[in-house]
Amino acid sequence: MKKADVLFKNAIVLTMDEELRQFNPGALAVSGDSIVAVGAEKDLLANYEADEVIDVGGKILMPGLVNAHTHVPMTLLRGLADDLRLDVWLMGYMMPVEREFVTPEFVRLGTQLACAELIRSGVTSFADMYYFEDHIAEATAEAGMRALCAQSVMKFPTPDAGSYEDALALTRTFIERWKDHPLIVPGVAPHAPYTCTPEILQACASLAVEFDVPIHTHLAETATEVENIREAEGIPVIPYVKKHNIFDAKVLAAHCVHIDLGEIRTLSQTGAGVAHNPSSNMKLASGVAPVQKMIDEKVNVGIGTDGPASNNDLDMFEEIRLAAFIAKGFSGDPTAVPAATALTMATRLGANALHIGDLTGSLQVGKRADLILVDIFGSHNTPHFRRDPNNAYVQLVYATKSTDVSDVMINGNFVMRERELLTLNETDLMEKAQAYAIKIDDFLTEREESLLSKLVALGGSMEEESFEVQTKVKLTEQVDVKAALANSELKILRTKHYREHDAYFSFEDPSQGRLRYREDEFIDEAGNVEQVRARLTLIGQANEEEFKDDVLLSRSRYLAPATNSLRFYREYFKPVSETIIQKERLRWLVKYKGTEFYINFDSFDKPDLGNFLEIKTRTWSLRDAKKKAKLTSALLDQLNLGEHATIKDDYIELA
Amino acid sequence: MKKADVLFKNAIVLTMDEELRQFNPGALAVSGDSIVAVGAEKDLLANYEADEVIDVGGKILMPGLVNAHTHVPMTLLRGLADDLRLDVWLMGYMMPVEREFVTPEFVRLGTQLACAELIRSGVTSFADMYYFEDHIAEATAEAGMRALCAQSVMKFPTPDAGSYEDALALTRTFIERWKDHPLIVPGVAPHAPYTCTPEILQACASLAVEFDVPIHTHLAETATEVENIREAEGIPVIPYVKKHNIFDAKVLAAHCVHIDLGEIRTLSQTGAGVAHNPSSNMKLASGVAPVQKMIDEKVNVGIGTDGPASNNDLDMFEEIRLAAFIAKGFSGDPTAVPAATALTMATRLGANALHIGDLTGSLQVGKRADLILVDIFGSHNTPHFRRDPNNAYVQLVYATKSTDVSDVMINGNFVMRERELLTLNETDLMEKAQAYAIKIDDFLTEREESLLSKLVALGGSMEEESFEVQTKVKLTEQVDVKAALANSELKILRTKHYREHDAYFSFEDPSQGRLRYREDEFIDEAGNVEQVRARLTLIGQANEEEFKDDVLLSRSRYLAPATNSLRFYREYFKPVSETIIQKERLRWLVKYKGTEFYINFDSFDKPDLGNFLEIKTRTWSLRDAKKKAKLTSALLDQLNLGEHATIKDDYIELA
Repeated sequence: MKKADVLFKNAIVLTMDEELRQFNPGALAVSGDSIVAVGAEKDLLANYEADEVIDVGGKILMPGLVNAHTHVPMTLLRGLADDLRLDVWLMGYMMPVEREFVTPEFVRLGTQLACAELIRSGVTSFADMYYFEDHIAEATAEAGMRALCAQSVMKFPTPDAGSYEDALALTRTFIERWKDHPLIVPGVAPHAPYTCTPEILQACASLAVEFDVPIHTHLAETATEVENIREAEGIPVIPYVKKHNIFDAKVLAAHCVHIDLGEIRTLSQTGAGVAHNPSSNMKLASGVAPVQKMIDEKVNVGIGTDGPASNNDLDMFEEIRLAAFIAKGFSGDPTAVPAATALTMATRLGANALHIGDLTGSLQVGKRADLILVDIFGSHNTPHFRRDPNNAYVQLVYATKSTDVSDVMINGNFVMRERELLTLNETDLMEKAQAYAIKIDDFLTEREESLLSKLVALGGSMEEESFEVQTKVKLTEQVDVKAALANSELKILRTKHYREHDAYFSFEDPSQGRLRYREDEFIDEAGNVEQVRARLTLIGQANEEEFKDDVLLSRSRYLAPATNSLRFYREYFKPVSETIIQKERLRWLVKYKGTEFYINFDSFDKPDLGNFLEIKTRTWSLRDAKKKAKLTSALLDQLNLGEHATIKDDYIELA
Repeated sequence: MKKADVLFKNAIVLTMDEELRQFNPGALAVSGDSIVAVGAEKDLLANYEADEVIDVGGKILMPGLVNAHTHVPMTLLRGLADDLRLDVWLMGYMMPVEREFVTPEFVRLGTQLACAELIRSGVTSFADMYYFEDHIAEATAEAGMRALCAQSVMKFPTPDAGSYEDALALTRTFIERWKDHPLIVPGVAPHAPYTCTPEILQACASLAVEFDVPIHTHLAETATEVENIREAEGIPVIPYVKKHNIFDAKVLAAHCVHIDLGEIRTLSQTGAGVAHNPSSNMKLASGVAPVQKMIDEKVNVGIGTDGPASNNDLDMFEEIRLAAFIAKGFSGDPTAVPAATALTMATRLGANALHIGDLTGSLQVGKRADLILVDIFGSHNTPHFRRDPNNAYVQLVYATKSTDVSDVMINGNFVMRERELLTLNETDLMEKAQAYAIKIDDFLTEREESLLSKLVALGGSMEEESFEVQTKVKLTEQVDVKAALANSELKILRTKHYREHDAYFSFEDPSQGRLRYREDEFIDEAGNVEQVRARLTLIGQANEEEFKDDVLLSRSRYLAPATNSLRFYREYFKPVSETIIQKERLRWLVKYKGTEFYINFDSFDKPDLGNFLEIKTRTWSLRDAKKKAKLTSALLDQLNLGEHATIKDDYIELA
């Protein structure tokens, strides 16, 4: 008799190996961290004696599931903001909250909470990508789980690195620390093509190659990403990142929703793994990855939950079912991604995608003992047909719930027995998580109370000069402005011609002010658009003071580059109304009696307000503003514009 | 103080009423079968005293879910056959098994098992359609559940009715029995436009109107259904059934996947309800219903699981999530069907769709006490954000599992407390269900063992004469067959011209014989296709006996009309290889010496075998066969065909 530590018997054993062997009644023997035998019960009972023999009572014994793409600390942001467009969700909510809250303590707690949920639902390995990955790896190893932990690198400052150079240095130290750990595989995570420069992609590739660790990245998630790269580079996403050496390393690519057959073949030839994320792709409306085609081309396609902020859970049974469902629903072919394929994706193919297929993903002698028991005796999973080997896969994929998982062993150690977690204090974790939720709710509630704080939360905004001197003249007849400016008292410093597209957002509470989204199209001398700039300005209510011909305004103005679309801001700020104003503007910067003024000649396209001439100047000083108000009046006289009416309304008030 | 029977306190109360009112902490009072108060906890505690006050510890208290379309007894067929095309699944597996097994005992057991699963997952009402609906209603009422039970009517014989007239008579008696029951609403279920004649639709409509009960039917589930009706009637499905008075009654229409805006408006105007079945539509690849558009047009759209044989469970939490997911994933709009909408569909809108919105679907005073408690304190559902009323809906739709439901009350009575079922013996039901599964597996295993039994299972097959006398001549030169037939010894009884498209399926075990799928195109004198007939023939291995020029074959031949496509038979019978043969055939039925013979002149298109002349006759009698063999030889001489080679191979053996 051979010796084993643990012998499972009286099980329906699904090996999920290449031949999809099944044993019923089957048995499996574990010694140390590894599987030493798997087969028919009578064979194992005849050959093995074990310290512990576990009669599993007819449950299914199968490999632990592999969650091929997630961001575990985001458990703490589950349900924070939903049913929003990707950019509003990401830049309006996730990133501002992450900037404020993500610390080593945060990622540690989020990881532990995730591990509790993952173990409960039968996951034994996962692929992560986030910030402070060192702390994530630590919490994961303590929970006894296997993971590919990849440290994020991107061109923006992140909660854990002020620059991408810092992030790369951090990643190197991280890899050195975890390189030979029995549970953790460290990796490099250039976040995505659109958040990395070519230099970053290349540096990440060479770091991954240097240590022979995987790269974990997001590729071709949305149609927009593909369009942008195609426009800028003339090639699709996969060739683009290939050009920057990514595939020199072992790659795990999340999403791959918008890729063509040529790109699928590149993934296959380079041995890259893909993580398919059905819930996330549906919920964020990214599209449906061509999973059946990837499988047909022998790509290792795993299944992932993505982060719990866009899912909103880590339930792999749900993902497996959804992978089978949407492959059929979108292709119109009910035979696409059958149950056995979906389950193979969540086990063996997933492990291959993470480049840990030598360790886990199937019940085979020599692999680590990463396995689960599934209780199939619930009323929702009754009865059991058994005439066809597919019946077992069908049952697991279409009727089993994650809560049917009763026992989980990872690397030869039990982490859950009879639904009891052995490595984590769930109650304590949930309490701490709730404390974070309350703080985050407070932070967002406060932010939502003012337009200004919502603007500030987006980042990059700054205050402008707060006093504005403004003279505005409605031109009732044809005026040759250029001739008027040819005046010996004036010196023209700069001339600009542009077209301005403004959208003014108004809000229920007028004291919040108005928000203006402006696109300036700069027109060159030939009349072509030379450059486009979009800016966001929060215009507070003005305190007005009138002078001859002039209005002196004091108000708050916050300016931010508008890096997102008008649609984004509309969905983020939720105005009660919106006014569109479009005009041509000729602008001169002039010096008059030693002071600089802007002179704007505005002719309106929409609404049809006619032509205006504005003289404007700004300052931080009230005294200076009063002095400039007098000068403005004098300048207006100088221009000698004939009949005109001075008005004090803003254009938005005339529209 | 007012009196109540039960008072729930310390709950997050989601009323799901028109205003989507929430109370936190909230309370609800029940007297008898009805809700007598719902509101803020302090208000109810100040005004009510109750026999039983239940502190629910911060759980969510909400209306019980409404499963808007299912076939409850099909729990017993869960996981029987999956990942197949609709026709193979339905006609190859479901219908043969139903013909064999569906009895009052079967539907009763299946209903009880379904009720256990439904209650566990928080469903309090459902809409059913099946056979022996009287027994389903009985089992449902005993389990304490609310249901619209609709008795199936269709043009084919069913397990409970030999004809549609019988089915209608049965339905009338059924309605009379259940008309005023507190839990059961009886209904009429014309199965679908393609399984009913216009007369059946009209008769069902007038029966439903007579008793003012709902009609429950399947409409526009697949693109094929719509195409067929459009081809035959020139109009889409909704106008077609409208023409046959269906909307005179209160309609609950399942699926409505392939309908246009005009049809949506018809549904809205006629007050019809729709049951959206996301899992079933994905799994059978039927398509995606335009749910957001229906909601926008004020159609009462509920959510259903469909039968558990095409799902494979009755988990409404999964359906709700999937409804939200696929609406976004297919439209590309992540704001489509947000969480609150999805949950409203599964409660108030669903109840309206079943035409029981006056009784259930929201927590409002006067409605029946149909409610559930949801435990939101699992690690998979932590933390809880609460700054926005949508947070609660988001949590229920995107992270809650059906197993989080802890308590269920229907019509004022608890049917589950602390996850303990009070009206059903689950263990007993599961045992009995498993006994059925074993019997059904045996039935199918036996069927799968022989081609003949698989053919017989499809219905309509019959045995042909088993002795065939065959003379076959390969014509090596041009022969004027018509001139040869102009012979005073022969009388031509009938002439036919057709084109034959044959597909021969071969199987691993040659003793099973071959299956031939043949399409005969009958060609008229002008050369046009007059008629097409498709037949399936199972050709057993022949025992041969040779005579001069002739071969006498004795073999089994089973013939069946091929009502399904070649593709169907390919997927159903799974041949190891397939051979295509196409030929033109001129066939004469002649009388020669008092005996009838077929003379075939065959010229091959595919493969290019040349031209053949066959003389054939068949009989049940061996003695008669031998006599005919001699005559056949004489007839061949009569024809005087010049140089020719007699061969004994079948065409399939030459191909």
